[in-house]
Amino acid sequence: MQTLVSRRGDVDPFIVMSILKMAEDLEAEGRSIIHMEIGQPATPAPASARARVRDMLDSDALGYTVSLGLPELRERIAGLYRDWYGIDLDPGRVVVTPGSSGGFILAFTALFDLGAKVGIANPGYPAYRQILKSQGLEPVLIDTELQDGYQPRADQIAGAGLDGVLVASPSNPAGTMLDRPRMESLMAAARDSGTAFISDEIYHGLHYGARGVSALEIGDEAFVINSFSKYFSMTGWRIGWMVVPPDRVAAVEKLVQHMFICAPHVSQIAAIGALGATEELAANHATYAGNRRTMIAGLEAAGITRYAPPDGGFYIYADISHLGADSLDLAEALMREEGVAVTPGYDFDATRGGRSWRLSYAGAPDDIAEGMRRIARFCAARG
Amino acid sequence: MQTLVSRRGDVDPFIVMSILKMAEDLEAEGRSIIHMEIGQPATPAPASARARVRDMLDSDALGYTVSLGLPELRERIAGLYRDWYGIDLDPGRVVVTPGSSGGFILAFTALFDLGAKVGIANPGYPAYRQILKSQGLEPVLIDTELQDGYQPRADQIAGAGLDGVLVASPSNPAGTMLDRPRMESLMAAARDSGTAFISDEIYHGLHYGARGVSALEIGDEAFVINSFSKYFSMTGWRIGWMVVPPDRVAAVEKLVQHMFICAPHVSQIAAIGALGATEELAANHATYAGNRRTMIAGLEAAGITRYAPPDGGFYIYADISHLGADSLDLAEALMREEGVAVTPGYDFDATRGGRSWRLSYAGAPDDIAEGMRRIARFCAARG
Repeated sequence: MQTLVSRRGDVDPFIVMSILKMAEDLEAEGRSIIHMEIGQPATPAPASARARVRDMLDSDALGYTVSLGLPELRERIAGLYRDWYGIDLDPGRVVVTPGSSGGFILAFTALFDLGAKVGIANPGYPAYRQILKSQGLEPVLIDTELQDGYQPRADQIAGAGLDGVLVASPSNPAGTMLDRPRMESLMAAARDSGTAFISDEIYHGLHYGARGVSALEIGDEAFVINSFSKYFSMTGWRIGWMVVPPDRVAAVEKLVQHMFICAPHVSQIAAIGALGATEELAANHATYAGNRRTMIAGLEAAGITRYAPPDGGFYIYADISHLGADSLDLAEALMREEGVAVTPGYDFDATRGGRSWRLSYAGAPDDIAEGMRRIARFCAARG
Repeated sequence: MQTLVSRRGDVDPFIVMSILKMAEDLEAEGRSIIHMEIGQPATPAPASARARVRDMLDSDALGYTVSLGLPELRERIAGLYRDWYGIDLDPGRVVVTPGSSGGFILAFTALFDLGAKVGIANPGYPAYRQILKSQGLEPVLIDTELQDGYQPRADQIAGAGLDGVLVASPSNPAGTMLDRPRMESLMAAARDSGTAFISDEIYHGLHYGARGVSALEIGDEAFVINSFSKYFSMTGWRIGWMVVPPDRVAAVEKLVQHMFICAPHVSQIAAIGALGATEELAANHATYAGNRRTMIAGLEAAGITRYAPPDGGFYIYADISHLGADSLDLAEALMREEGVAVTPGYDFDATRGGRSWRLSYAGAPDDIAEGMRRIARFCAARG
């Protein structure tokens, strides 16, 4: 018998998978592969996070927590807003989530009915449009431009008939950030248009000039999504949080109860530990800052100059159209010839992605340096 | 500004919350409260699970795993089907999920388009209908009867125009199980009606007579959802699995990539350890078996005799309508007078739940014994 197949569940594959498969095959042959396609830190959770888990493993049954999360964790997260942004956040508005993934699912479910139109930047994180589609919502791609840092402008939101808009600063794939005036203008445009505002701030903490601006510094109406994955180096722990308007906490709590019960208890324990790991996280940050300089210098040397300022996170979204071929073909050639994995732009921008690669500098410094030498050689051979 | 509020996200509250609030207040006053409303083991994850986590904390960065889960875990889960049911399951069909909650979200998304009708037993686990509703699907309540063990009959599925049906054996709230002939008849009725079949088997392993029958023993078309929460005593770790038909693996994999990325890595490690904890889990099982005998004897002594045979899991769904009042009022009175928390039937059956309580025997043996003495006293005062 043929089981039912839903249309909404038929999501796009990741184009980068073909590159990953090539990398795997070449690695099996003993080739050295530099991974610049990766979206996660190479470092483990901070030592203080792991120590706290070790301490609790035998002293606590680690059963379900309350749905909104351990009170201590919610208080510590609220404290982060004081430390990072100087704002006083009621811990009662903090919802601990199973990764930012859980936050997106919850926010979309709480805010939008079926068929709602939700604006997202193009290029952007592919899961946004797939989660929206899987929920019967309509992702509205806002084509962003290099000169705008691949971020939407207020005039693209004002009067656009959107039920919601989701911005990401720092962005994935571009690493660009919205400064305070731009965040204010986007939130004002959304407010004036009756458009719900969702702010993805999962790369906050990883900035190389001015710090990230939280939507919560500007208004309480935003749904703000964050995560312990990136700055706190805890991807595999699947733990994040969302800050919601005061009058939405009760509804979101019920959704968590039914959809997730709670975020993983052990990961909540680890997150409490991670929040105190200031020195270790500063060292990770310094590594990224060095990697970023290496990558920028390497791109320069390779003649790749068209990219928006990578203000934060650990990606650069580089226009490589001057190389005269499609980004997927070029990525495959780069893998074959030089053993470097990059992500073709198609995963972020299905229509214009043929012009760009996303390069990650989350890896080890020596790997980034070697990868950039190989990319320079690859480009020189095409010059 | 008023943010958007979705209708699908406006789910029902748990009625038991008022009981929990009373319990909390009374405990704050120093009263002894017996918790028979709980849906989780009091035991921690098995020692072998915790040991494995301890060993890996410093030796592995515990980053993202592949979306379908660690290959070793998927193979060990497939092995469980050999050990428990004598069937040969391709590990490639096993999808590791963030709890069974993740499995339900994935199964519904993969199978059903918006507006699809999905049959579920009434009484039943409340999250089924809330997750269905949150996805824009229509839960179709199949009113089940005490004499049918609160399980649906094939004639309630055949020709009922359902896009899908979800059965749970052992059931929550009733602990009743579908034997092989009944499981076969339900699957045949679904097959003949073009109805997708989802089998919730999260209480498997916890049986007190014949073992649970998996839908996979009968046919490959079912989506089978299971969890490490109950038998393996790992609720807070949020780790489970789903077995899908061979031709659905690739689609579900893409959904996991976008919706969850992966299940928590640390919990996957713990789950591998838990799969070897035969002796410890047998001891837990023996405790439940003793608790079950205590509860059955206590109900008898209290004059509560109308319940379906509690074949598995750790709940009894008891008709207490002879006490002459509504189940919520009676639960509040029981809490006030005797300090025992039970779950009123309304959370499982919104229309008929006023006749029943769900009692959990997942707690400590002494607590179950004391709770049953208190319930007998409560009932005697109303005889």
